[in-house]
Amino acid sequence: MQFFSDNATPVCPEVMAAIAAADRADHGYDGDMWSARLDGAFSNLFDTPVKALWIATGTAANSISLACLCPPYGGVLCHEEAHIVVDECGAPGFYTHGASLMALPGEGAKLSPEGVVERLKAIRPDVHQVPARAISITQATEYGLAYTPDEVAALGAAARAQGLGFHMDGARFANAVAYLGCHPGDVSWRAGVDILSFGCVKNGGMIGEALVFFGEQAAARAAEAARWRKRAGHLFSKGRYLAAQLLAMVEGDLWLRNARAANRAAQALAEAAAGRLMHAVEANELFVRLTAQEAAALRAQGFDFHDWGEGAARLVTNWSQDAASVKPLADALRALKE
Amino acid sequence: MQFFSDNATPVCPEVMAAIAAADRADHGYDGDMWSARLDGAFSNLFDTPVKALWIATGTAANSISLACLCPPYGGVLCHEEAHIVVDECGAPGFYTHGASLMALPGEGAKLSPEGVVERLKAIRPDVHQVPARAISITQATEYGLAYTPDEVAALGAAARAQGLGFHMDGARFANAVAYLGCHPGDVSWRAGVDILSFGCVKNGGMIGEALVFFGEQAAARAAEAARWRKRAGHLFSKGRYLAAQLLAMVEGDLWLRNARAANRAAQALAEAAAGRLMHAVEANELFVRLTAQEAAALRAQGFDFHDWGEGAARLVTNWSQDAASVKPLADALRALKE
Amino acid sequence: MQFFSDNATPVCPEVMAAIAAADRADHGYDGDMWSARLDGAFSNLFDTPVKALWIATGTAANSISLACLCPPYGGVLCHEEAHIVVDECGAPGFYTHGASLMALPGEGAKLSPEGVVERLKAIRPDVHQVPARAISITQATEYGLAYTPDEVAALGAAARAQGLGFHMDGARFANAVAYLGCHPGDVSWRAGVDILSFGCVKNGGMIGEALVFFGEQAAARAAEAARWRKRAGHLFSKGRYLAAQLLAMVEGDLWLRNARAANRAAQALAEAAAGRLMHAVEANELFVRLTAQEAAALRAQGFDFHDWGEGAARLVTNWSQDAASVKPLADALRALKE
Amino acid sequence: MQFFSDNATPVCPEVMAAIAAADRADHGYDGDMWSARLDGAFSNLFDTPVKALWIATGTAANSISLACLCPPYGGVLCHEEAHIVVDECGAPGFYTHGASLMALPGEGAKLSPEGVVERLKAIRPDVHQVPARAISITQATEYGLAYTPDEVAALGAAARAQGLGFHMDGARFANAVAYLGCHPGDVSWRAGVDILSFGCVKNGGMIGEALVFFGEQAAARAAEAARWRKRAGHLFSKGRYLAAQLLAMVEGDLWLRNARAANRAAQALAEAAAGRLMHAVEANELFVRLTAQEAAALRAQGFDFHDWGEGAARLVTNWSQDAASVKPLADALRALKE
Repeated sequence: MQFFSDNATPVCPEVMAAIAAADRADHGYDGDMWSARLDGAFSNLFDTPVKALWIATGTAANSISLACLCPPYGGVLCHEEAHIVVDECGAPGFYTHGASLMALPGEGAKLSPEGVVERLKAIRPDVHQVPARAISITQATEYGLAYTPDEVAALGAAARAQGLGFHMDGARFANAVAYLGCHPGDVSWRAGVDILSFGCVKNGGMIGEALVFFGEQAAARAAEAARWRKRAGHLFSKGRYLAAQLLAMVEGDLWLRNARAANRAAQALAEAAAGRLMHAVEANELFVRLTAQEAAALRAQGFDFHDWGEGAARLVTNWSQDAASVKPLADALRALKE
Repeated sequence: MQFFSDNATPVCPEVMAAIAAADRADHGYDGDMWSARLDGAFSNLFDTPVKALWIATGTAANSISLACLCPPYGGVLCHEEAHIVVDECGAPGFYTHGASLMALPGEGAKLSPEGVVERLKAIRPDVHQVPARAISITQATEYGLAYTPDEVAALGAAARAQGLGFHMDGARFANAVAYLGCHPGDVSWRAGVDILSFGCVKNGGMIGEALVFFGEQAAARAAEAARWRKRAGHLFSKGRYLAAQLLAMVEGDLWLRNARAANRAAQALAEAAAGRLMHAVEANELFVRLTAQEAAALRAQGFDFHDWGEGAARLVTNWSQDAASVKPLADALRALKE
Repeated sequence: MQFFSDNATPVCPEVMAAIAAADRADHGYDGDMWSARLDGAFSNLFDTPVKALWIATGTAANSISLACLCPPYGGVLCHEEAHIVVDECGAPGFYTHGASLMALPGEGAKLSPEGVVERLKAIRPDVHQVPARAISITQATEYGLAYTPDEVAALGAAARAQGLGFHMDGARFANAVAYLGCHPGDVSWRAGVDILSFGCVKNGGMIGEALVFFGEQAAARAAEAARWRKRAGHLFSKGRYLAAQLLAMVEGDLWLRNARAANRAAQALAEAAAGRLMHAVEANELFVRLTAQEAAALRAQGFDFHDWGEGAARLVTNWSQDAASVKPLADALRALKE
Repeated sequence: MQFFSDNATPVCPEVMAAIAAADRADHGYDGDMWSARLDGAFSNLFDTPVKALWIATGTAANSISLACLCPPYGGVLCHEEAHIVVDECGAPGFYTHGASLMALPGEGAKLSPEGVVERLKAIRPDVHQVPARAISITQATEYGLAYTPDEVAALGAAARAQGLGFHMDGARFANAVAYLGCHPGDVSWRAGVDILSFGCVKNGGMIGEALVFFGEQAAARAAEAARWRKRAGHLFSKGRYLAAQLLAMVEGDLWLRNARAANRAAQALAEAAAGRLMHAVEANELFVRLTAQEAAALRAQGFDFHDWGEGAARLVTNWSQDAASVKPLADALRALKE
């Protein structure tokens, strides 16, 4: 049983069915009837008028978001362990034409309004220094923590007060919302988020995430993002196969159902590994202290996962699991203690 | 019946089956067992060791190719009606960080070695002028003409003589090879092509083209292209679904079978529209003189297609058609004459 | 006597004196008292409130202008023989992050409103094609022709009607204004120009041109340009030496005096070479039909100049000359006829 | 008396004389006889064959160096307080097309080989993470410390071992060499430096620094840098005025003479402020603990300088000073103690 990554998991049946249903002739690019429904579907989901675009990957979604919010000579405040800093081979620098990522520390890969404000104070307003123009946070964070609505709103208020754009990398947005039990709007537009990378692939999709634009500038930014999408070679010839996946996720509650399953699996493991947890488990990732011997013992029992530096491991659950299905690993984790 | 575009067509059944077969857990990105087979499959196809990468779209494939061949301060010789010039929203400028497209005229959207050499002569070798560093041609051309092996080889020789890289946009490479009846190597590496954008989506795929690297620098360029692919947000989390499509196309003869079907349909229409053809029909596109009245008459019979300026139309056939299936349009075209 | 280029000429004495006068301690970059006077001096010159920045070269001035007017996915309409197309090694592509130069034909390197409008009509408004966002013209043109106030205004009106920015490369703006005898505002802001590259170096300066911003967006664009200037390494540590040169040029009438001298020299040569002129002489450049033998004969008499393709030559006069001082060449040209 | 910055100082007389001597007709750009002497002059200075280009500013010199050493998807290891990180408005991101600056800590703004190696170990070699491709250090550092030949050589060896390029920002290279009393080659090419930004403006020049290329790739990199220089609008029309300044600096010992004067002034102040120094004084900068009252007292006596955060100040001496000329400030600093 693999706990490598939610990327390693198959596509969920509802998404496969949606792809099959979209397998008919229609206009190319995003001229099809599925793509035309995206704005409506995401507006319903978020309970506010939004613009939504399908986009190939989270890296592209994040980078295009930043390109919409930050000029080439600007900077983006983000956590020093954010995916955009650590795992995207400089994609934000490519899309923003060289904007700076201004990395901040923070427990559990979370930014705080205080940290943001302090960093901003250190920037002289002359032309020699890169001006901050946006904040980007990850929901859930790279360590599987969920920002609460209040926490997002406090960062949103700081962004607004300083004239900064506010982006949210929501590769695991569904898991965070499922954990928080809040309305998706409470941790996005109601809290000041301008652009959301809404993740689907880790949550059971095959190919395609959504870029969701909120607020008064939504239409203008989405129009610009559509240019970036084409210009970056992301305007698929047969976009209906992406649109259909997103619609399957969000026209019903599949996105939440899948996330809840993954979260339940994670909680089951968290209970079993209670004394070993390096971070609270608020989504579908666990960071667990494990000696090399313990890790080897688990692997010998058929559990696959990534090491996380020395003496630790990362376990990722996914939509296809549940508390019951991960019981063998939970048992094995408990057994280690004895 | 639609003749808008080969993009408007459904996915062919063999590709759908391959996607379904790939729907199981495996490593993310391109660490899966399908992606691992690409080099081998394309090496077999081309009868020479190559490196091959899946890539989202033709635009991305073309742009990454040019980024591998041309520095930001360089230029790419290409036809003035090439897709990279006309229909990619400046994507080559994005990926090459501002390199210049040096547009040349040429009948049927074909470049000639003479035209290339003449243009090169006009460039002073000082730092004030943009130096040409690559040639890019489209096979089949934007007007559906196939470069013969000799024609490609003549351009390849010119490229080699001048120290230029040689890229081929093969969005309809399959149709050209099917028409020419040659080995795919005869119009690619044997003729001096360094990098080929090998099209699959127009030929029955869902999502994903192949970037194929030939020659001594293949490995180095593919490694660099893999960086660009990630950096541009094109490294899909679940790349196996793309790899599986490409393998379905090229491990057997599906790519040729599909192209031949589309070509036969095009030939059937070409015979029916013989007096109206603006270009020879050597792939799956027809450019046909049609008055507005004639176009309206065909549309009234249920045939959909794009106008091509005034007094003309573009008809595109696809893998799902054949001489028989397009007979209604052929008959309708013949009927117009009377 | 050299007629290679106005760049080959020494600095005029008034500019050298201004440099010497600025040779004292002051704040670095553009914090000095000379730089602070630029807005006022150019506002006086143009008889309207403007923002003005010193900038190293014409290439930088042009490129930063275009970066202020055109997004990376946009295009700039310009003449196919414009300096920005032919002689700047792709600098506009660098500064605009890959925007396209949309080259148009036109007699004497002049754009016409009709040509502009026709080109715009050919651009589909979808995301596949590069949208035009700016027009750039050269005053005087690359062939030494001056756009009249009406001609500039017609292009300005076309730009305004289409929502395009309007840039003028004024490397020889002084020569054009001197020839036209108009107010400098008549061929700039009153005619719709948004940003002017105001040339000084060819007109007697050592280092430094001016970027002049007109209209309601002047302040915002100048602030952005100041970022580009720093970001491109063009914010000199001792900017006062550039500012002082510009002030010497425009706080009095030195800019016009120098240009008139160069123009008179050009007119004197034009009369002498009347039958040989390839273009009207409206600034300080002459394009003259000369056989190889004739060119050699002139060179043998000590006159240096560049060939202009086969059977022609370019002669450039400068601030240090006058009708009298170029009489030897005028006589030699006349003598050729016999 | 100002201690703001060495940029605030006038040009030294020898440089002004050199400018005046260059004020005659010659070929434009870098085709003149002064520019032609640069390679030779710097080869003599460094006692090895080098390529040398004049360049407008230190920011441009640094950025072009990095563009020659690091691809857009790569990273540059540097100190977190390096000028390229803090004070260039993201210029390296512009020139490298988005490469990452990998900021490291280090006492006195110095990098250590251990710090470099440790950081490199943390980078996975997959395509998700930005690969380091270059190291950049500042000599003397942003806190006025000089890297010894051994320290530079240790970093050079680390760079070589890891396949990294090695750049030195030598805005105050002269001050460091003057302090160390070594041959300039000992802290550059003999220690593994590939490209040096050789500063002149802070050391008495008006406009223009030198880019110096060492080693086997010197010619190829200089040719590429010449492209970047043009493409960035840094190829001055009248380059002879820059070349002449550089030659005045390095064909004799002016560069060292000026630096020694500034260093002597700094040492005189250092002795006077011995108990207040935050860093050793090894060049022409002093970072001094000063209360707000003390700072005010000094300013009241006519000494101008910048605060350095709270409770500290930065004092910069320059070529026009000496131990004697700064005695008034030295006395005032001593007087504070009492």
